[in-house]
Amino acid sequence: MEVWRINLRAQTLQKETPPEAWQRIGGRGLLARILLDEVPPLCDPYGPHNKLIFAPGLLVGHMLSSLDRISIGAKSPLTGGVKEANAGGSTGLHLVNLGIHSLILEDRPDSDAWWVLHLSKEGARFDPASDVVGLGVYDSAKKLLERYGKDVAIALIGPAGEMRLTGAGIMNLDKDRVPARIAARGGLGALMGSRRLKAIVIDDRGGEKAPIADPAAFRAAQKEYNKALQAHPQTKVYTDFGTIAVGRLCQTFGALPVRNFSAGQLMDLEPVSAEHMRNLLLERDGEANPSHACMRGCTIRSSNVFAGPDGKATVSPLEYETVGLMGMNLGITDLDVIARLNAKTNDLGLDTIDTGAALGVAMEAGLAAFGDGEGAMRLLQEIEKGTPLGRILGMGAAITGKVLGVERVPVVKNQAISAYDPRSIKGTGVTYATSPQGADHTAGLTIRAKIDHLSPKGQKEVSRIAQINMAGYDTLGACIFAGFGFSTAPHLIRDLLNARYGWQVGEDILQVLGRETLKLEVEFNRRAGFTAADNRLPEWMTREALPPTNAVFDVPEEDLDTIFDW
Amino acid sequence: MEVWRINLRAQTLQKETPPEAWQRIGGRGLLARILLDEVPPLCDPYGPHNKLIFAPGLLVGHMLSSLDRISIGAKSPLTGGVKEANAGGSTGLHLVNLGIHSLILEDRPDSDAWWVLHLSKEGARFDPASDVVGLGVYDSAKKLLERYGKDVAIALIGPAGEMRLTGAGIMNLDKDRVPARIAARGGLGALMGSRRLKAIVIDDRGGEKAPIADPAAFRAAQKEYNKALQAHPQTKVYTDFGTIAVGRLCQTFGALPVRNFSAGQLMDLEPVSAEHMRNLLLERDGEANPSHACMRGCTIRSSNVFAGPDGKATVSPLEYETVGLMGMNLGITDLDVIARLNAKTNDLGLDTIDTGAALGVAMEAGLAAFGDGEGAMRLLQEIEKGTPLGRILGMGAAITGKVLGVERVPVVKNQAISAYDPRSIKGTGVTYATSPQGADHTAGLTIRAKIDHLSPKGQKEVSRIAQINMAGYDTLGACIFAGFGFSTAPHLIRDLLNARYGWQVGEDILQVLGRETLKLEVEFNRRAGFTAADNRLPEWMTREALPPTNAVFDVPEEDLDTIFDW
Repeated sequence: MEVWRINLRAQTLQKETPPEAWQRIGGRGLLARILLDEVPPLCDPYGPHNKLIFAPGLLVGHMLSSLDRISIGAKSPLTGGVKEANAGGSTGLHLVNLGIHSLILEDRPDSDAWWVLHLSKEGARFDPASDVVGLGVYDSAKKLLERYGKDVAIALIGPAGEMRLTGAGIMNLDKDRVPARIAARGGLGALMGSRRLKAIVIDDRGGEKAPIADPAAFRAAQKEYNKALQAHPQTKVYTDFGTIAVGRLCQTFGALPVRNFSAGQLMDLEPVSAEHMRNLLLERDGEANPSHACMRGCTIRSSNVFAGPDGKATVSPLEYETVGLMGMNLGITDLDVIARLNAKTNDLGLDTIDTGAALGVAMEAGLAAFGDGEGAMRLLQEIEKGTPLGRILGMGAAITGKVLGVERVPVVKNQAISAYDPRSIKGTGVTYATSPQGADHTAGLTIRAKIDHLSPKGQKEVSRIAQINMAGYDTLGACIFAGFGFSTAPHLIRDLLNARYGWQVGEDILQVLGRETLKLEVEFNRRAGFTAADNRLPEWMTREALPPTNAVFDVPEEDLDTIFDW
Repeated sequence: MEVWRINLRAQTLQKETPPEAWQRIGGRGLLARILLDEVPPLCDPYGPHNKLIFAPGLLVGHMLSSLDRISIGAKSPLTGGVKEANAGGSTGLHLVNLGIHSLILEDRPDSDAWWVLHLSKEGARFDPASDVVGLGVYDSAKKLLERYGKDVAIALIGPAGEMRLTGAGIMNLDKDRVPARIAARGGLGALMGSRRLKAIVIDDRGGEKAPIADPAAFRAAQKEYNKALQAHPQTKVYTDFGTIAVGRLCQTFGALPVRNFSAGQLMDLEPVSAEHMRNLLLERDGEANPSHACMRGCTIRSSNVFAGPDGKATVSPLEYETVGLMGMNLGITDLDVIARLNAKTNDLGLDTIDTGAALGVAMEAGLAAFGDGEGAMRLLQEIEKGTPLGRILGMGAAITGKVLGVERVPVVKNQAISAYDPRSIKGTGVTYATSPQGADHTAGLTIRAKIDHLSPKGQKEVSRIAQINMAGYDTLGACIFAGFGFSTAPHLIRDLLNARYGWQVGEDILQVLGRETLKLEVEFNRRAGFTAADNRLPEWMTREALPPTNAVFDVPEEDLDTIFDW
């Protein structure tokens, strides 16, 4: 496995053996390591010193269920700190099949021309992107698949990334070559756009599967892992319903993101319930599919294809976070409307969380009424047209709130809070506040922790455990749901890693990797000028009681300031 | 002298004796002291815990020439740090005449109604502001003077402050009751707007001059000060030409802000030269006046009234910073055009520096051509109309650059650099980078220091001296030009303070006050989460050579990081 280092100004590729320290960690942790080693923490995120890095997780490349995720990172144009956003789909697998340990994109071009970076056994090549620039993600992907063949993987940006809007992510194809898996958060799409890179096409023909040190042990562990995964009761829930299954729990806890986080419960959850969505998708023939795998080998299949009444796919997938932020958060509970907003947001190449939060803030500012789906679509069209209002919204919730003069803005480190109100699930509030990534539920969701979510006590501890675990999973390339398999059999992570790499790590390896990752990230942010001041929820959330629990966020600041002292 | 503490929610006034520590310092230093004592550094600038504070300088109230300035401060909505913006005019004098040591506006109202705060011997009163809300600064001032009598002082905001735009300042009447002296920087107008306070009217009838411990000594020192002031060769230059006199020096050094800081020299300075402006104003009869005093007792009269060819006043004053940022920086060198842009910006209640810088960034983004005065006016009208583009621009250069995707943005701590390019006057670059106030020439201009301005060496030292001196002057209520008098006779500051207060301070009192002020400010910012990362010029200024000197900013970062270690 080699580091592929590409200079975007000179359009050159240099292959290198990764240094020892880069070989012991993958994915999110590897990104933090490379950033610390190579990117000046105080650099302008759009300047020539920042680097856009793709790092597959340690277990990517073997079609282990839910273990082929790609981590993409840089100094974030949105938060100004360390950034990793990961996604399923086929990008990670194809990179590993080409023997790419990590892909480091350096410097930036001199000219205004747009490019497609093509990676294959022959190396790297820059093709003009003039035929796809300006196109949405869906049309771009279609054209690129026509040009490069239907078996390639593609990571690409939409118009929002081209416009350098910090709500922009990097979209990846799923296993069926649908642009569906976005590394959404932190403005990485804007960074890619600033590099005049419309897409990275990865053609793994002639590539080889990653080597395995002890194939027999690997197969045995894989088998046991699949069994553990299938045996876990939650697996079936997520197979049947997907991520939206968590909605009912949030409703119970009063933690839904309703109308710009002004209420934690819906009067009626049914129209956006997991059961309703599943029934709808079962009812609707054609392309509708309530259970779809985004990566090859995935047995959970928590993704879906949402289709309209005519059976034609509206969007894939429709996830809980999007139903939360672009639905409930906007007062919209019609899944068909939400799915159309989701498709448009995907097509623009935007993060549905930050964009949904921005639209919620815009509605609070009076630019559309809560519940007005057409109004929400009109706002997305402003982004598409690149109007001043569109540029404001496309920058995400933090800038939208500032420019529109709204106080109630749900962000930490300029990144929007996701679909769990931190006042009613306080451990997740601790994660939002303290994660080096900015507000991010995937950095340590605590909703399933056995704790009184309304009490400020003990939240530091549950958040810390969740953050370490999630950071660990993010080094492996694991989907959060891989945890269903590993949680009951943590020795399997050890066994898979030892078999894959010939290591001799212990059963605590997930925590070791997670702690190392967080340590590196916290250090990068420290050098980038972050302090305790950045590890706070918005002040209004400490003051404004959330109906119906009437909770405020009251975890002691001392807990926030000491969470990484271990 | 008493602290007048006003609760904006309850609309109550409480008078208090200032604590000992608040009595030994005034103006800018007092603001920092009060902020540290009373405002949580991590608070939301618009939240209920921030306070808007008016603090006259220590020598305000005696019509000492150039010594009646008012310092206004808060935690800045623009920089997020400590903020002081000071202004001449009559606000400081009237406050002192009412015996007000400092005016602290606390909390915020519950309702959306707008208010005028009226201060007089009878105390404080809140009058409805419904007849002036929405009006520009000029019409508002006119109406308020009609209502409250022509002898009051007024501090007020324009539509930009009402809209909570962070480019908004707080305008003050000059001695002739013209709204002309704006405490421009750091978004204090936006904070005042968030408090639903359109204006503060100060009626000093029945008030008394501030007490003087030793009147004879005071008079003697005052006399000597006036003599020293008149004897200084620069005094006549500023009397004749005003602040624009510095333009030729900047032209010589290659440090003018030309077309969004892309060049340091004009091909032809003449149309914007001090001599041309003076001749024009002498030529034009009517209200034109090349030498006008903004404060009673001022003998320098560096202000002016700019009138059009018809002799009608266009704006007062037209200062060098505005000619720089709204003229040269936009490629505009017609003084009549610049004066009209200035008048419109004043009327909106905006900082001409940050707004000019924002327009320069907008021009770089292609929203108007450099040199297009009508285009610049159109952009200001967008702010007036409150369109999304207008809101972007009204937020200042930092947000404008972010939202429009422009890299070349001249800001530090989100506050725009003023009309001295830091690459060619590197000591001032050190001031921009390190001042706790954000980029601000008044925090320590080094253009007259005896040093090679292009060399990175020794700039830390000249900036430190300038910053300490300026912080000292800002505690006194001194205009920068009072220095012409004190620089040759520093014992006069000692004598005036000792005579006024019965103190026994030494000749180094200016430095003592300056150091104390900076220490307090740095400490507030530290608690607010500022680090060395915030003490940097924009990265592109370290890379992009400025014609014709071809200088980049190359003062060692270590110098920036150690400037306040003394």
